[in-house]
Amino acid sequence: MFATTSAVRRATAAAMRAGMRRATPVRSTAVRASLATFQPLDTFARRHNGPREAQLAGMLEQVGCKTVDDLIARAVPASIRRDAPLALGEPRAEAELLRDLKQIASKNKLMKNYIGQGYYGTTVPAVILRNVLENPGWYTQYTPYQPEISQGRLESLLNYQTMVTDLTGLPVANASLLDEGTAAAEAMLMCWSAAKRAKNTFFVDANVFPQTLAVLQTRAEGFGIKVVVGDYQTFDIDAIKDDLMGALVQYPAADGSIHDLKAFTAKLHAHKAQVCCATDLLALTLLTPPGEWGADIAFGSAQRFGVPLGYGGPHAAFFACGDAHKRRMPGRLVGVTRDAQGRKAYRLALQTREQHIRREKATSNICTAQALLANMAAMYAVYHGPEGLKAIAKQVHAMTVALARALTAQGHQVDSKHFFDTITVTVPSGVKPLVALAEENGINLCVRSATQVGVSLDETTTHEDLVQLIDVFAQATPQAQYLASTTGASGAGRAELSTAAAEAATLSALPAGLVRTSAILTHPVFNTYHSETEMLRYIRHLESKDLSLCNAMIPLGSCTMKLNATVEMIPVTWPEFGNVHPFAPAHQAQGYATLIQELEYALAECTGFARVSLQPNSGAQGEYAGLRVIRAHHAANGEAHRDVCLIPVSAHGTNPASAAMAGMRVVAVACDAKGNLDLADLKAKAEKHAKELACIMVTYPSTFGVFEDGIKQVCEIVHANGGQVYLDGANLNAQIGVCRPGDYGADVCHLNLHKTFCIPHGGGGPGVGPIGVAAHLAPYLPGHPLRPDISTSQAMGPVAAAPYGSASILPISWAYIKLMGASGLRSATAMAILNANYLKARLEGAYKVLYANEAGMCAHEFIVDARPFSAVGIEAVDIAKRLHDYGFHSPTMSWPVANTLMIEPTESESLAELDRFADAMLAIREEIRKIESGAWPKENNPLVNAPHPASVVLADKWDRPYTRTEAAFPVAGLRERKFWPTVARVDDAFGDKHLVCTCPSVEEMAEA
Amino acid sequence: MFATTSAVRRATAAAMRAGMRRATPVRSTAVRASLATFQPLDTFARRHNGPREAQLAGMLEQVGCKTVDDLIARAVPASIRRDAPLALGEPRAEAELLRDLKQIASKNKLMKNYIGQGYYGTTVPAVILRNVLENPGWYTQYTPYQPEISQGRLESLLNYQTMVTDLTGLPVANASLLDEGTAAAEAMLMCWSAAKRAKNTFFVDANVFPQTLAVLQTRAEGFGIKVVVGDYQTFDIDAIKDDLMGALVQYPAADGSIHDLKAFTAKLHAHKAQVCCATDLLALTLLTPPGEWGADIAFGSAQRFGVPLGYGGPHAAFFACGDAHKRRMPGRLVGVTRDAQGRKAYRLALQTREQHIRREKATSNICTAQALLANMAAMYAVYHGPEGLKAIAKQVHAMTVALARALTAQGHQVDSKHFFDTITVTVPSGVKPLVALAEENGINLCVRSATQVGVSLDETTTHEDLVQLIDVFAQATPQAQYLASTTGASGAGRAELSTAAAEAATLSALPAGLVRTSAILTHPVFNTYHSETEMLRYIRHLESKDLSLCNAMIPLGSCTMKLNATVEMIPVTWPEFGNVHPFAPAHQAQGYATLIQELEYALAECTGFARVSLQPNSGAQGEYAGLRVIRAHHAANGEAHRDVCLIPVSAHGTNPASAAMAGMRVVAVACDAKGNLDLADLKAKAEKHAKELACIMVTYPSTFGVFEDGIKQVCEIVHANGGQVYLDGANLNAQIGVCRPGDYGADVCHLNLHKTFCIPHGGGGPGVGPIGVAAHLAPYLPGHPLRPDISTSQAMGPVAAAPYGSASILPISWAYIKLMGASGLRSATAMAILNANYLKARLEGAYKVLYANEAGMCAHEFIVDARPFSAVGIEAVDIAKRLHDYGFHSPTMSWPVANTLMIEPTESESLAELDRFADAMLAIREEIRKIESGAWPKENNPLVNAPHPASVVLADKWDRPYTRTEAAFPVAGLRERKFWPTVARVDDAFGDKHLVCTCPSVEEMAEA
Repeated sequence: MFATTSAVRRATAAAMRAGMRRATPVRSTAVRASLATFQPLDTFARRHNGPREAQLAGMLEQVGCKTVDDLIARAVPASIRRDAPLALGEPRAEAELLRDLKQIASKNKLMKNYIGQGYYGTTVPAVILRNVLENPGWYTQYTPYQPEISQGRLESLLNYQTMVTDLTGLPVANASLLDEGTAAAEAMLMCWSAAKRAKNTFFVDANVFPQTLAVLQTRAEGFGIKVVVGDYQTFDIDAIKDDLMGALVQYPAADGSIHDLKAFTAKLHAHKAQVCCATDLLALTLLTPPGEWGADIAFGSAQRFGVPLGYGGPHAAFFACGDAHKRRMPGRLVGVTRDAQGRKAYRLALQTREQHIRREKATSNICTAQALLANMAAMYAVYHGPEGLKAIAKQVHAMTVALARALTAQGHQVDSKHFFDTITVTVPSGVKPLVALAEENGINLCVRSATQVGVSLDETTTHEDLVQLIDVFAQATPQAQYLASTTGASGAGRAELSTAAAEAATLSALPAGLVRTSAILTHPVFNTYHSETEMLRYIRHLESKDLSLCNAMIPLGSCTMKLNATVEMIPVTWPEFGNVHPFAPAHQAQGYATLIQELEYALAECTGFARVSLQPNSGAQGEYAGLRVIRAHHAANGEAHRDVCLIPVSAHGTNPASAAMAGMRVVAVACDAKGNLDLADLKAKAEKHAKELACIMVTYPSTFGVFEDGIKQVCEIVHANGGQVYLDGANLNAQIGVCRPGDYGADVCHLNLHKTFCIPHGGGGPGVGPIGVAAHLAPYLPGHPLRPDISTSQAMGPVAAAPYGSASILPISWAYIKLMGASGLRSATAMAILNANYLKARLEGAYKVLYANEAGMCAHEFIVDARPFSAVGIEAVDIAKRLHDYGFHSPTMSWPVANTLMIEPTESESLAELDRFADAMLAIREEIRKIESGAWPKENNPLVNAPHPASVVLADKWDRPYTRTEAAFPVAGLRERKFWPTVARVDDAFGDKHLVCTCPSVEEMAEA
Repeated sequence: MFATTSAVRRATAAAMRAGMRRATPVRSTAVRASLATFQPLDTFARRHNGPREAQLAGMLEQVGCKTVDDLIARAVPASIRRDAPLALGEPRAEAELLRDLKQIASKNKLMKNYIGQGYYGTTVPAVILRNVLENPGWYTQYTPYQPEISQGRLESLLNYQTMVTDLTGLPVANASLLDEGTAAAEAMLMCWSAAKRAKNTFFVDANVFPQTLAVLQTRAEGFGIKVVVGDYQTFDIDAIKDDLMGALVQYPAADGSIHDLKAFTAKLHAHKAQVCCATDLLALTLLTPPGEWGADIAFGSAQRFGVPLGYGGPHAAFFACGDAHKRRMPGRLVGVTRDAQGRKAYRLALQTREQHIRREKATSNICTAQALLANMAAMYAVYHGPEGLKAIAKQVHAMTVALARALTAQGHQVDSKHFFDTITVTVPSGVKPLVALAEENGINLCVRSATQVGVSLDETTTHEDLVQLIDVFAQATPQAQYLASTTGASGAGRAELSTAAAEAATLSALPAGLVRTSAILTHPVFNTYHSETEMLRYIRHLESKDLSLCNAMIPLGSCTMKLNATVEMIPVTWPEFGNVHPFAPAHQAQGYATLIQELEYALAECTGFARVSLQPNSGAQGEYAGLRVIRAHHAANGEAHRDVCLIPVSAHGTNPASAAMAGMRVVAVACDAKGNLDLADLKAKAEKHAKELACIMVTYPSTFGVFEDGIKQVCEIVHANGGQVYLDGANLNAQIGVCRPGDYGADVCHLNLHKTFCIPHGGGGPGVGPIGVAAHLAPYLPGHPLRPDISTSQAMGPVAAAPYGSASILPISWAYIKLMGASGLRSATAMAILNANYLKARLEGAYKVLYANEAGMCAHEFIVDARPFSAVGIEAVDIAKRLHDYGFHSPTMSWPVANTLMIEPTESESLAELDRFADAMLAIREEIRKIESGAWPKENNPLVNAPHPASVVLADKWDRPYTRTEAAFPVAGLRERKFWPTVARVDDAFGDKHLVCTCPSVEEMAEA
């Protein structure tokens, strides 16, 4: 499928690795060559890590260790420890690093992009850029699983869903998916699920984006679904109707043409198959929406609604469907419900995802959304409103019409009759000279074939751009040159456009039958905030409802909410990274190439692997890719039948889901009472399935937060039985610089760059989930149809729409690694372990802490048991919600053990914050004692009533058995620094029963 | 004093103006030349202005007007209206403008600057850059006159004061002054005031920065103070002792040398004269502070504490003095007091400045501070802490020692024996080749004379920079070249530095007797927030206490709190504007030159004047400069005796203060009952003083918020009597595009770019106060000693330390004007007048509105009378504080009429926000009625108890005659959107009686 360049690639990889190993050290060695040197003072590690040098002794004493090395020795098994420093060089100073990165960035060439293919130029409104994308109040939030302290982004995501339902004409939309390609795969699987997996064929019209098709095919392979590609107009659908579960069409199509799909849809429906429609939000402001002509599912990318190109990502994909499918909706769905006071409130509907994913019954392992980008897109719609969006669409369309007419007047063959923003031009003599001339003029066209180019216009196209474009066409082709020569070449484009534009003013190339008549975005939220002042206040008002890392620690076990340093975030919004099209010629993106190579190397060095792929744009995507790589390896060895995946019962829910998606059968492995993998059971299962064993998926340190002693044995047992070891990298934060999966026996591992490597959570995405693999698996890493140069002959298909997934946020992790250097990375790991053990030590007297290693040490997280309080009616959730009153986000609830709290402070929290949190937990324990002693009734106390928003504690009547002070200011520090939850306890069941996933009307809000 | 280049300058001005007039139109004309064109859609005016097109009809109806033109016709006298559009071209699209500005910016050359002279390279910690300087939550706040909703920046400014007192060793410091030059002038005037103006001579050591001396001399001239310059070591002080009020020395001195000034200080004190010390905060971390060796006053620039160079400004100057002088402290002083609950609270001490300035008794008209920059500097100290700052200082010093030794080893003559970061090198053969070679290598040295260069190192200097510097010296001078040739030229710098650095490790060039022994920054605030996470949370926590434009309207009369659009703010933090030294050669700053020329032109066009000077860095500074220009004009005409300045009784307090500073006598002019200038009285006074009349200072529209009909006559009367007309531009926001001061008779006018032209208030500065002048006054505009090329032969001395004042924020106003274009600027004026009249109409039934024109119209602001409520004990201040409970900043209180509120909504507020404010005011009126009716007692009601912080309304006991709901949520919308004041009513008198101007200790805070 992909060009064979593995030899070249291996050579490049080797050279790159060698270069990298040298590169960083060389610089500092040179400096150090002098006897005396002046080193940068602003060492980043002391900004990134919370504890101060002077506090270490006291903290270590609290956890019973003498030194930091002693701490690591007691927490991490000697058998896997690696004391050699990572070959990542010395830490770099912040200012110096930014200068160097700017140099690298400047190697990306900024062009006028008319490539389209799902990625379009857009103007990010400055007020959104600064106050959302560049604002830690929006980018450091976690996924809104705690709705009482997340009403801001839940409202914004509900705006997003409302926008999508409005524009697609379908009643239900989710809060975003990873990208258009994976959304296509999810659509296909929704059809499969609707057909109860009884039918296995999926038809795809050939006129869809190539990357969409490729991602969908990759996913279909895992499930054994048959994808049939053809021209929907000529293909004999009836021939496959019995096994047909659904079809995918694109509207407008990949070549820009717009088709009336009503008849096709009717035929599919007659066959009881679903119609999925890939579409474009801007086009839908003018076109009859898919929901109105019968599509069952519509999806696409919201990128052009104010999210920079970013070399392919991250962007929010949208996904909408009919009511019939709403309980099959993949990803996250924001819904409306009520709180304990009966007021309207928002929350994630139907389920709290992530750890509760439906394991091997799932067709999807999605648990990351693109919240930050979805919020940007929603804010873009709020900012422009329906009239603004239509005006943009109309201008883009009018420009495209004018361009088509001008090119036609030049004598070019414009193939499209009906189109929105994209035309295809045939150049019988070949497009090469045209494309070359365009590039010389700073223009990228879409090369569709040897004789066809595509031109896609967008919001950023100006009149002058069009003139230039027309001039380029005129100069590049013989017939146009001839015509130009008859009128005088100079200024021809301007004159031609002038004529064409005058005509375009009264013309439309939209099919008459598909002009939109229904209204869009009628909700007040899209019709209120149109001055910048109003917009600013709306954004800031929503932000103020949400607890982020700007306010307090977010001590989530299994997720790592460390510092997202400003210096790491600054490059993300540089135009040099933002304005590169993912399908621009590779030589234009040399800045990205350098960055990607260096980051791949660094991650390989951190994990002890041979190669890294940065394509997966979420951890779950990484899991899936890793498992597919393992399957490909077995297949290449003639063992395609190996399909058993061993998974410990304590695993993340995504593990079995990913295994199922890779076509594997899951076999559970037991854990012992201490939470360790039961090696005997493992051995038994591995041997039993030795002939069919594909792999084990294992998290390390374990999901119980412990470095298990037996990890090396685990790997050996699996290898001995012909299996591969997949290491879930969710807990890598405890390992970097201390031990390496590749060293102790893992074959594949995914990394959550949004956990361990500082990419912020963005309020629920983006995430990046690259995988590292041992050398024997390297040939199978994901390729990409539009980048044969980076795809080996044995590469699996792409798992994400863009070649490098979420490329534009990779500078964050790159910068983190360079700033920390080898020593800093190890110190972060040590501090993460120290902070966790410190908190554990402080809480142990009051709470039962589950699981530790032989030395009594946890890794970077630990579990506190709430089950002893069940007797007095207190559950983990009550402690969690009560923590909101104390100004904290709650730890992860009831995972991996029901009715517990899993706490991970990360290395970035200071001793003062750890103590503030411990004090809160201890105070809550005393509150529980009051219930135990009968001082407070079980059914009416500050825990079961938590959280307490201001409106509750300010009620004129107060008849609770505790005081207002006890409710709102249980510790004195809260008087100085109080974060107010904005709603009382949210009623999940009510919301799921009465599912509402679009903005409630003003009347409905008023009623509540 | 300055080079004669007025002819050149006039020619340039003419060419520039012609170019400008053409420039903007040409572009759009070219585009429009086509019959049909595609225009940018994102017109900025609809983002900047609040009211929507569709709302205009209703709003106009409310104010009794038919159209917007009708509104203007009714509000503005026909005699001065100008219907021709300003020659400022079409509005520009946001994205396009940023691209163009980036082009302009890129013409500034980024160099390694070793120029020093009060401006040093610094690394802005990224977390401060993004969360303070780039954060509207910090930059859109107003001056903290309302302490209950300003505790965040008051705390930060108190940190600043504490930092300054610690470092200078003096007990009292203010919250910043405009720049080091003006701080020197204030120091001199403090001495004068301490001497009760009975002594008039001020001695200045010659070894101070030239710009400091120049600004001080300018200021001395106005007051007739005699400045004597000499070498403090040799000058015969005894000869002038009888008239000597004080002396200025610099420590370290301008040439970098450090002197022991104890003996000199003792001598001055023996003569009952004060010692003022210009100094450097970074040096003071290592040097005995001035307060410890006897200085009475210390001042300097805090720029190098994390504020970019910015071509000279804005930066915060610091100013500290002994207890004896604290009640003479110029500018703003933050102090500690208590609130109505007895809790510690911060507020501006001793007086609310601005409108209450001490009129003609003042020695200073300062009312702007540099709050935003002072906050940045304070946060820099919080971030680095005492150890971090000392480490920076030690490294800078060690590098300077190493440099000195390496250059000495090369055979150079290093003149300095004792120094901190600056050395002076004598090159007998002349410095020209050295300076030229340095510039070729991207290095700027300080040219001190034909044979001397200065080199100042700073925090940003790296080892590699030193190597390069040493290499440049080696190559540029014969003896060094010779020596280099004997060792092998290549790599000589590296080897030399290596040797020198090894020596420097154990050496110090600080005088042994002046090494600091006292501790610095011991307060916990400087020893707590050293991880980025802690720093982020501290910044955000303080921000959350302050009401800014992110939260609500700030309806201040006389100040204009309009939108500070993000797109205008973005360029401010571009390195191309941030990293240019003010004394870099002019050819390196061509980007600034273009920007400044275009802005000068645009402001001249807006005001109808011939020339503009951007140097004054505050409105008051502009007033002073304008009056001095008028005096210079009279002097040039042989009428130096003209010194009477007519000022209406309604004037801003700064007016008489400025007049006094310019050596003028103030004669008051009466106003009639309607608030208009009493023309008869004016005529009488003008004629009476015809022989000695210098000018009138008049605000237009009047300080009562009305376009007076007689303004043209006012100008005629004054001119007829030989005077000039100074127009106070505080209210220019009501005039742009509608009428022009230069057209209706003004000769000078200052503009507050931080009011009318969108520079944000920054929580109390920066401000920019350029002046426009008619052609006959142009020759006298301020010059600058280091920029002879921009100084005419008749130029007055500089009023600010940097040639272009606060250059780095000029892009804001430039962008605003370009984005709005002629049509947009006029629309903003119209909307400002409409919004004010709309609010006036909504409030008129409930409140008495003072002053309007014949047609019943106000201009852009109006006054609401609170005096009718005195009977029930309610004053304007109670309404103001009660507005905090409703989520609003209060209007300006008791100015220009006691016990009133002056309201200016600006054009940027939406109809919804105007209505929310009007509803709040009307609800408050109903609350007053409840007091009037006796339902609530006079001494205990929501108004006199306002504002109500959460801790008050949450008290477990509630015994007030109104409910908690009435206290905190008097209108329903507040439940959804509530801004909490963080302290109760602040006790000003208590704080002034017990003046504390540094951070209270933790114990003191706990006590409260």
